[in-house]
Amino acid sequence: MIGVGVIGVGYWGPNLIRNFVTHPQTHMKACCDLKSDRLQYIRRLYPAIETHRDFQNIINDSGIDLVVICTPVHSHFELAQAALENGKHVLIEKPMTATVGECEQLMELAQRKQLKIFIDHTFLFHGAVSKIKSLINADELGDLYYFDSVRVNLGLFQHDVNVLWDLAPHDISIMQYLIDRKPESVVATGAAHLDNGLEDVAYLTVYYPGNLLAHIQVNWLSPVKIRQTLLAGSRKMIVWDDNQPSEKLRVYDKGIEVIETDAQVYKTLVQYRTGDMHCPKIDATEALAVEVQNIVDVLIKGAKPVSDGLSGLMVVKILEAAQHSIKQHGREIKI
Amino acid sequence: MIGVGVIGVGYWGPNLIRNFVTHPQTHMKACCDLKSDRLQYIRRLYPAIETHRDFQNIINDSGIDLVVICTPVHSHFELAQAALENGKHVLIEKPMTATVGECEQLMELAQRKQLKIFIDHTFLFHGAVSKIKSLINADELGDLYYFDSVRVNLGLFQHDVNVLWDLAPHDISIMQYLIDRKPESVVATGAAHLDNGLEDVAYLTVYYPGNLLAHIQVNWLSPVKIRQTLLAGSRKMIVWDDNQPSEKLRVYDKGIEVIETDAQVYKTLVQYRTGDMHCPKIDATEALAVEVQNIVDVLIKGAKPVSDGLSGLMVVKILEAAQHSIKQHGREIKI
Amino acid sequence: MIGVGVIGVGYWGPNLIRNFVTHPQTHMKACCDLKSDRLQYIRRLYPAIETHRDFQNIINDSGIDLVVICTPVHSHFELAQAALENGKHVLIEKPMTATVGECEQLMELAQRKQLKIFIDHTFLFHGAVSKIKSLINADELGDLYYFDSVRVNLGLFQHDVNVLWDLAPHDISIMQYLIDRKPESVVATGAAHLDNGLEDVAYLTVYYPGNLLAHIQVNWLSPVKIRQTLLAGSRKMIVWDDNQPSEKLRVYDKGIEVIETDAQVYKTLVQYRTGDMHCPKIDATEALAVEVQNIVDVLIKGAKPVSDGLSGLMVVKILEAAQHSIKQHGREIKI
Amino acid sequence: MIGVGVIGVGYWGPNLIRNFVTHPQTHMKACCDLKSDRLQYIRRLYPAIETHRDFQNIINDSGIDLVVICTPVHSHFELAQAALENGKHVLIEKPMTATVGECEQLMELAQRKQLKIFIDHTFLFHGAVSKIKSLINADELGDLYYFDSVRVNLGLFQHDVNVLWDLAPHDISIMQYLIDRKPESVVATGAAHLDNGLEDVAYLTVYYPGNLLAHIQVNWLSPVKIRQTLLAGSRKMIVWDDNQPSEKLRVYDKGIEVIETDAQVYKTLVQYRTGDMHCPKIDATEALAVEVQNIVDVLIKGAKPVSDGLSGLMVVKILEAAQHSIKQHGREIKI
Repeated sequence: MIGVGVIGVGYWGPNLIRNFVTHPQTHMKACCDLKSDRLQYIRRLYPAIETHRDFQNIINDSGIDLVVICTPVHSHFELAQAALENGKHVLIEKPMTATVGECEQLMELAQRKQLKIFIDHTFLFHGAVSKIKSLINADELGDLYYFDSVRVNLGLFQHDVNVLWDLAPHDISIMQYLIDRKPESVVATGAAHLDNGLEDVAYLTVYYPGNLLAHIQVNWLSPVKIRQTLLAGSRKMIVWDDNQPSEKLRVYDKGIEVIETDAQVYKTLVQYRTGDMHCPKIDATEALAVEVQNIVDVLIKGAKPVSDGLSGLMVVKILEAAQHSIKQHGREIKI
Repeated sequence: MIGVGVIGVGYWGPNLIRNFVTHPQTHMKACCDLKSDRLQYIRRLYPAIETHRDFQNIINDSGIDLVVICTPVHSHFELAQAALENGKHVLIEKPMTATVGECEQLMELAQRKQLKIFIDHTFLFHGAVSKIKSLINADELGDLYYFDSVRVNLGLFQHDVNVLWDLAPHDISIMQYLIDRKPESVVATGAAHLDNGLEDVAYLTVYYPGNLLAHIQVNWLSPVKIRQTLLAGSRKMIVWDDNQPSEKLRVYDKGIEVIETDAQVYKTLVQYRTGDMHCPKIDATEALAVEVQNIVDVLIKGAKPVSDGLSGLMVVKILEAAQHSIKQHGREIKI
Repeated sequence: MIGVGVIGVGYWGPNLIRNFVTHPQTHMKACCDLKSDRLQYIRRLYPAIETHRDFQNIINDSGIDLVVICTPVHSHFELAQAALENGKHVLIEKPMTATVGECEQLMELAQRKQLKIFIDHTFLFHGAVSKIKSLINADELGDLYYFDSVRVNLGLFQHDVNVLWDLAPHDISIMQYLIDRKPESVVATGAAHLDNGLEDVAYLTVYYPGNLLAHIQVNWLSPVKIRQTLLAGSRKMIVWDDNQPSEKLRVYDKGIEVIETDAQVYKTLVQYRTGDMHCPKIDATEALAVEVQNIVDVLIKGAKPVSDGLSGLMVVKILEAAQHSIKQHGREIKI
Repeated sequence: MIGVGVIGVGYWGPNLIRNFVTHPQTHMKACCDLKSDRLQYIRRLYPAIETHRDFQNIINDSGIDLVVICTPVHSHFELAQAALENGKHVLIEKPMTATVGECEQLMELAQRKQLKIFIDHTFLFHGAVSKIKSLINADELGDLYYFDSVRVNLGLFQHDVNVLWDLAPHDISIMQYLIDRKPESVVATGAAHLDNGLEDVAYLTVYYPGNLLAHIQVNWLSPVKIRQTLLAGSRKMIVWDDNQPSEKLRVYDKGIEVIETDAQVYKTLVQYRTGDMHCPKIDATEALAVEVQNIVDVLIKGAKPVSDGLSGLMVVKILEAAQHSIKQHGREIKI
């Protein structure tokens, strides 16, 4: 039985709590938050969970093995450091920390203490991502041409980070997980429309080796919610529309071929090939439940973590580079 | 009666011909093409139209007042120049020419000869664009925040230009028509996946004064066809999905407001406002028919052209800047 | 504080429990089920709720004021009768009972005991239905022409009732709530494709006075899930697509008008009018929460119940008639 | 070369003309209409086609082999009879005639004269229908369970027939073509909301042998256009949504299986199986062009007609039965 304590029960924390409550090998022991109404909300739903105001009660609890950190980004480093120092494994809400340096410090500390860092890149446990990963592994897509992801909606505005740090960690973690290469450089543009100076619209291009181009669009000011990812290869192309109630993942047997042709004025030099489209069935298990299972497997059976400190570090590296690029109107920043 | 001659009857030319045939004040007199099967196709559909191989027959025909140029980009300048020299008005397929310098030469020549240049930015005559324009003019949207346009599909590949020059003229001409400001600079990224070195995926950010950001995404390698434009203002936001069979234009009474709030850990500093959504009825007349009517009105009644040389020049300016930016991995190019 | 006991915690019961747990004026005291794994599931989620195997523990509990019956249809009558006899108000899962006679007995018993019967027609508390009802009340739609509802999906098959009794209660309760007239007759057709003889596809026409036609289609064998309701009036027309992630309700300013015309061979005698479309914002509160609030308001403040025994009776009347009609291949059955 | 004459160039006639103009083995010689503006429209588009007011000019023209009848239903019989008497093959707009008796007379006459009757059931030549037919022929679907088709929109109202005779011929012809069995009986309901007494909403159930149920819904008063057909078998299920811009045909590897289970209160007795979904590529050739090709193949090479008098007769038989059923509120009418 893994004892679990959760720091921060705002918007996302309760979802993690629910999954730790229902998993048979975890004991959801205690949580803390600075706001009493949130603690009351948790007590009403789960009378058996201890609630505290001070996070020290979590990191000092000998019945807790794993500390879950669901607080604003700027506090991640301090809380994770304290938990690791006290001998706790940590699961940190994305993005891992506010700087690359902090990520590296935590990774070093965890290694020294022989503790695990998990980053809550929930989408890596989504059935669609698993299916895409397996299609890539089976070389169904051929050479990868581009990755294009759109994550836009109205709100929710964070008070301490811009839209890039708020929404793009999802896409970046998915992108890195699927592409599995080291990016070369980043170009980002964006704009802030409120007095706080935080970008609410941002566009991010990531150059990968092998002529693979990635692009991520995030936006807090979109009237419609779009969650769409395209991944195109030389053989097949994938569209993942997470906003669809069903048939979220579509695999197209489409591509291009260079053909021999006489010089024509209005014909093309390349031919495009359109075959069938296929919607593979995807595992509908809640991503968080799969994630909790992976954490349990790592801590109990020594399994390989899907989303660890390195995964968190790469996301922050790209975010940091993008941040610099945005401020310089798209200047290319090497990774 | 305006005599019309068409140079180039490949993919798009026949659509123009059909509209000049049916308009009561135009006489669709002759066309030419280097390919005999295309001429045969026209003869079968319209036995009354003269067909030629040599474009000289068009520009020397005294019964022709307007020469329509529907050929690959690289030939636009030479053909338009010849037509203007011979005293003909010209309607040029988009983009106007291959360089800013050529645009300026044509404009200078037309002015000297007191002739009209029309650029076939067909979408400016689309019912949705007219409706958006009228909403902007009525100040329904408030301050403009961003313009975001996606135009992706599989093919069709041009043999002489990249995806930017092929598809983005649509979005750029719409953007300039709606925003009606001088852009400041351009940042573009992209990639070419075939041996010809022509970009098949491209992303273009345009900075406008007043913190207005525009972004255009074009792609020849997308398994799905997307034609979607978002235009967000401080008061209302618009989504135009031209791929929908109906209800293409949606106007959202949505926005954000900065609200007073105590420092909260997981709440936002800004409030978003979501009201009703409205689909205004849009004029379903074929855009080309409206365009031909505008041309007739200009030539006969002296009306103001919607899409003239200046419109064509601005599109080519942005394309040229984007081209330079792409080749330098997103370097900002001033307009 | 209203003490609540729930009989049956299979698929739907836990949703009711969750809402009674979170409402501040209800005390979710106890539940029972014949299956121990279901009780264990509840205990794990809500350690404070008592769990029993025998429903007698619920209806005899003096701390319980309201008994919620979430069991298969055939047991509704016996359980509700026992609860009412013991002085408890009842909330019964739809459909109310298996026969019209049983409905009437329960209503008579409740009246005699001065107790309340609530029927869990959850959709009557859905934001879309409330909005449609208010549009009808404001006479926005004009004369009602037809109601058309489709509720199809793959499974879930009930072992004791056909698809009509399983799915159509939703549509019938919505239809009766919105139309608010006494139906005249019913014509139903359907087919059973499994050995159990239970119809898995059914079509139901209901004739209302005033030339208002209603049609309901239910299907357990559809590869796609459809939840779509059309309601057309002489002035406006409504489409409610509950399967959409957003913009579920669309109000069309469309209609027909008879116009004067000379006898024409290929023209129509009536003109159709197409104006704008409007998506009113709908209340996104969970329907069950609104329903629980209405129950609390009835029991504590004497408010008017939205879904009472009469509502349940009308649904069962139409179901019974439809059942007879189906077996006789569409014979019209008077209500 | 097959000489073609067209009687009636209202809404649909010009589409047929365009296809006969472009087919290399047909000579689109002449057309007639009572309205001069329609004839003028044709002359402007196709100066080479003769135009007449009197249909006698068509049926007496020795250069015409095939007479195409695109007029209102009530005139089909007289015109087709006259054409056949004059030794012409006929292509008749759907529905074939206004009564079963007229269909039979025309068939008898054509057989006596050794002439061909083609019925313009255009959808039988649609790529989606061909693909479905081939899937059925390859026994991909298993036993057929049901056919369900929806064809609704706003207008266009016919002045001489109700919505059933106007729209349902499409669905009935598709249904008969795919199912290829003799129907047993028909149950129909509907309502008329205008003074002309013509039903504008209608629902039609057709009973086939082997427990196969078919249902067709047609409606002139729908604010949205729906063109959706479901065909479910024991092995696979098909959804054809003709209103989609792409991926119109979806084949679901879904079904149900009866499984052994202990008596459970809230579980089902049958299991449903959900596998992948597949969108086969469908031939995008215009259906009318395929139809014209079939007619040419029949007349020149003696090929088998896809849509002949028998096909037309079956459609009218079902329409006539449905008409009787509607007037008697769903009384079952044997075919």
